[in-house]
Amino acid sequence: MEVFEAIKKRRSIRAFKNMDVPEETVEKLIEAARWAPSAGNIQPWEFIIIRNKEIKHRLAAAALNQTFIEDAPVVIVVCANELRSSYGYGTRGATLYCIQDTAAATQNILLTATALGLGACWVGAFNEEQVRKVLNIPNGIRPVAIIPIGHPAEKPAPRPRRPLNEIVHYETF
Amino acid sequence: MEVFEAIKKRRSIRAFKNMDVPEETVEKLIEAARWAPSAGNIQPWEFIIIRNKEIKHRLAAAALNQTFIEDAPVVIVVCANELRSSYGYGTRGATLYCIQDTAAATQNILLTATALGLGACWVGAFNEEQVRKVLNIPNGIRPVAIIPIGHPAEKPAPRPRRPLNEIVHYETF
Repeated sequence: MEVFEAIKKRRSIRAFKNMDVPEETVEKLIEAARWAPSAGNIQPWEFIIIRNKEIKHRLAAAALNQTFIEDAPVVIVVCANELRSSYGYGTRGATLYCIQDTAAATQNILLTATALGLGACWVGAFNEEQVRKVLNIPNGIRPVAIIPIGHPAEKPAPRPRRPLNEIVHYETF
Repeated sequence: MEVFEAIKKRRSIRAFKNMDVPEETVEKLIEAARWAPSAGNIQPWEFIIIRNKEIKHRLAAAALNQTFIEDAPVVIVVCANELRSSYGYGTRGATLYCIQDTAAATQNILLTATALGLGACWVGAFNEEQVRKVLNIPNGIRPVAIIPIGHPAEKPAPRPRRPLNEIVHYETF
């Protein structure tokens, strides 16, 4: 699928068919993620791949009971390795670059999933401490996105967008 | 260009030909940016499009003298609208979601530029206060990325990537 088509076709999918996503497909998504750009090529990302039902259930609970998370055959939790970024770039690395770099990696996953006909959702609303406990995530590594992935069982319409003349500024703000 | 091909072909381009990038192309890049996902569809992004030589020069100075910025025919400065995200989601919105959402939009710009045969670079190293002054950016709006865009005058090799077995974790960290 063409880049721009995938960008426009991507939706947040919160309902999944009872169909597996094979491991090769997950590897393709991670491969896409790791080609994201990162400040100083530090690659401050870690990916936790979850298929275990009990863990998905506890993860959904940690994500304010967004139960569709546990309906997905596979869930990728993206973590920002704050340590790697702070070694390179101090506070700006730990609070900005590693968030941006992992977000670019997350967007690569979503676009690649779209191109493969899969559905996914970028879940950001969760209790970080709870997710940390469920997944044994050590200090210095921060969970930043939960991505349930499966075959879509819904076709949401595109959400509205702010008009260009509101978001575009010329030469100065 | 296919999504995955663009993801793999994208490079940080820091040398540009003396050739313009037409306004329709810039609009296409912004169009790609605004189809990025955002928490609660809040779309906390603002884009400043800069072609003025003097402003590009001052911007390069604010970006620790990365002079290649002023060699690009067009520069897009991506800003996070912290106010929009904090109305919706408080501190988590202002410090996490609006950074992630604008990073996803930035990645869309980079991938679309790659698909169009253009070169671009995600510049994160700059003095925010100086950039704010140069571009008259008000409080509550934060410059998060400077993207010089032009026709590439270099073909950098791919940078190395951390191996999969270092970045992938199964079930728990």
